[in-house]
Amino acid sequence: MSFSVKGFKAASVSCGIKKSGRPDLSLIYSEVPAVASAAFTKNALKAAPVLLSMKNSKNGRISAVIANSGNANAATGKEGYKNAEKTASAVAAELPVRAGDVFVCSTGVIGVKLPVAKIISGVKNAALLLRPEGLDDAARGIMTTDTFAKTASAELKLGGRKCRISGMAKGSGMIHPDLATMLCFVLTDVSVSKRMLDSALSVCVKESFNSITVDGDTSTNDTVLCLANGMAGNRPVKSPGREYKAFLKALSSVMISLAKQIVKDGEGASKFVEIEVKGAGDEKTARAAAMAIAKSSLVKTAVYGGDPNWGRVLSAVGNSGILFREEKIKIFFGGLKVVSGGIEHSGFNEKKAHLALAGKEVRITVDLGSGKKSAKVWTCDLTEGYIKINAHYRT
Amino acid sequence: MSFSVKGFKAASVSCGIKKSGRPDLSLIYSEVPAVASAAFTKNALKAAPVLLSMKNSKNGRISAVIANSGNANAATGKEGYKNAEKTASAVAAELPVRAGDVFVCSTGVIGVKLPVAKIISGVKNAALLLRPEGLDDAARGIMTTDTFAKTASAELKLGGRKCRISGMAKGSGMIHPDLATMLCFVLTDVSVSKRMLDSALSVCVKESFNSITVDGDTSTNDTVLCLANGMAGNRPVKSPGREYKAFLKALSSVMISLAKQIVKDGEGASKFVEIEVKGAGDEKTARAAAMAIAKSSLVKTAVYGGDPNWGRVLSAVGNSGILFREEKIKIFFGGLKVVSGGIEHSGFNEKKAHLALAGKEVRITVDLGSGKKSAKVWTCDLTEGYIKINAHYRT
Repeated sequence: MSFSVKGFKAASVSCGIKKSGRPDLSLIYSEVPAVASAAFTKNALKAAPVLLSMKNSKNGRISAVIANSGNANAATGKEGYKNAEKTASAVAAELPVRAGDVFVCSTGVIGVKLPVAKIISGVKNAALLLRPEGLDDAARGIMTTDTFAKTASAELKLGGRKCRISGMAKGSGMIHPDLATMLCFVLTDVSVSKRMLDSALSVCVKESFNSITVDGDTSTNDTVLCLANGMAGNRPVKSPGREYKAFLKALSSVMISLAKQIVKDGEGASKFVEIEVKGAGDEKTARAAAMAIAKSSLVKTAVYGGDPNWGRVLSAVGNSGILFREEKIKIFFGGLKVVSGGIEHSGFNEKKAHLALAGKEVRITVDLGSGKKSAKVWTCDLTEGYIKINAHYRT
Repeated sequence: MSFSVKGFKAASVSCGIKKSGRPDLSLIYSEVPAVASAAFTKNALKAAPVLLSMKNSKNGRISAVIANSGNANAATGKEGYKNAEKTASAVAAELPVRAGDVFVCSTGVIGVKLPVAKIISGVKNAALLLRPEGLDDAARGIMTTDTFAKTASAELKLGGRKCRISGMAKGSGMIHPDLATMLCFVLTDVSVSKRMLDSALSVCVKESFNSITVDGDTSTNDTVLCLANGMAGNRPVKSPGREYKAFLKALSSVMISLAKQIVKDGEGASKFVEIEVKGAGDEKTARAAAMAIAKSSLVKTAVYGGDPNWGRVLSAVGNSGILFREEKIKIFFGGLKVVSGGIEHSGFNEKKAHLALAGKEVRITVDLGSGKKSAKVWTCDLTEGYIKINAHYRT
């Protein structure tokens, strides 16, 4: 499937922030102003570009996105905010857009002054390279410790019109809801009202980026942005109903794919782990239990070692703050039952349980036995690789 | 300082739970019933011995403690509870105590049936070995992944009588408030009322074991027990006042020493980290911020690598849920100021900051600049060693 969306152009350049010389500045441009919906980090310490983009996206219109990697422009004070503004102005100087319609993002090291001169000259070069096929390049330009670029696409028909949704994301450490050290830009040519786009994005963020964790840290820069430029020419989606549902489903598939890719690329990860908690009285309970399991360093190291230590899973549920009845709990590794009635399943077999954790993709299911609601979250194992990457990130 | 307390005897044996053949069963006996105060894990999943000991210590009198390592007797259902009762009965069969006055503890792997026959025969042997100098042995008998036995003592005078407080603890992983995967037994010959002992223990637990974290996991078995047998012959401490304060101070010194030893022995730890947050409007705020820093995997790996990445410290404060003013924050590594006014300190020097994190003991201080309250917590760095220990704990 080609990775382009009608009316959008993109490019990336190496502007000199990353010592490696890899691309570190991505520009995305919509030929017509796009309806914009965004979600931002809940970390109280918000990076300068987050503050600026919150302001610029308030009116629901964005025409261009400029994102640099290698420097988060966080904890940089008033000068950091001015540098984010200068970045937006640089885009407005090169493209037919107002500075106030530019969405600015940064990701990388916290607390280091943004080399804004490099970015301004990078913007000039990027503007010259803009092309409809440039989305893949843009996905590469926002990478930090990522080992691969993350993209996903979906197609749908609305009122006979073929529509596309394509997204890119970056992030592999400091990943935890609410949102993650991650940037996600989803572009679509669907015509949709601001109200319905906000509604869809909020549902999809919960199902995707707020359902993953790598290391329990929430970053200063997390941002999810969806731009809908309407160039598919469909009758605008303005209310809930069949067309909204179709859009929601497609958007969700793109965002869940991106979220899973982030976890698969988790720093040092050797395994992808899906955790489902079912049999809960309500979804919030199921989610709290699932996230407690996903966050437990002891569970994550056991998965890494293929150690079927279900006691750690049970203990994590005990720490989640939810109410449950121990004697009703069942636990499965893959399809293998390892716990029933809150104790080791009578047919428990260490070797089989070890095998159930042996693959690249591991499923852990906990049935609370107390209801019909469930929740799924995704994480990765915790390995020596995570330590290596993070012990010397700046040096 | 001799490690014995008037009226207490102890011993440990190898009863066959640990494959290594190391001591795995410790018995402590007080010649006269002791006033008992205890604190237990807040994990909703409580191990069988925790449930039994909660019941047995309710009346405030305990005569003996039996603790095994290598098996947590957690998630073992009704049979697990019966096995804890059988353990207490075995002690009552060997010593002049009622089964209901025996405090039972277990620590080790969750979910494996307790080999109670081994424990019963172990109790017989341990009872024969009881001696006043046996506390060190008992400290060794409760170790699991600990690399050294943890003990601490203090002496004080109350009304002219020399009194002693001696404590032992175990724990190195699954360490997090409330309490840690840890057992702590503090023995004293002070005569003190149940009410005042409860009050003192509650203050000391907060200052010690609830101020440390290794990996953010709270265990199913955490227990702190203090036994006061009154054999020093002091006039009983029955109310707040000078004598209570002297007792509190000595108890606190013993428990803080034990808590710090646990962190120093943190699984895979290469550095001991003291985190102080000051300048807070209230102590709760200071503690929440300090604990958020202590829990952050990104902070802990940076400390390991000696990477002066103060941005991670600031980001952790942002994630703590406290209210603060970014532009007022100062951060120090050791005595070196690295952040002032919420941004990098003008004199920041990468090499000096790296050196400030280079030693075996690292201090991180955050000044919120908004008040006079402060809190200290202790943790360790996160290294490849933690992963190695926990990836294959059972296998």
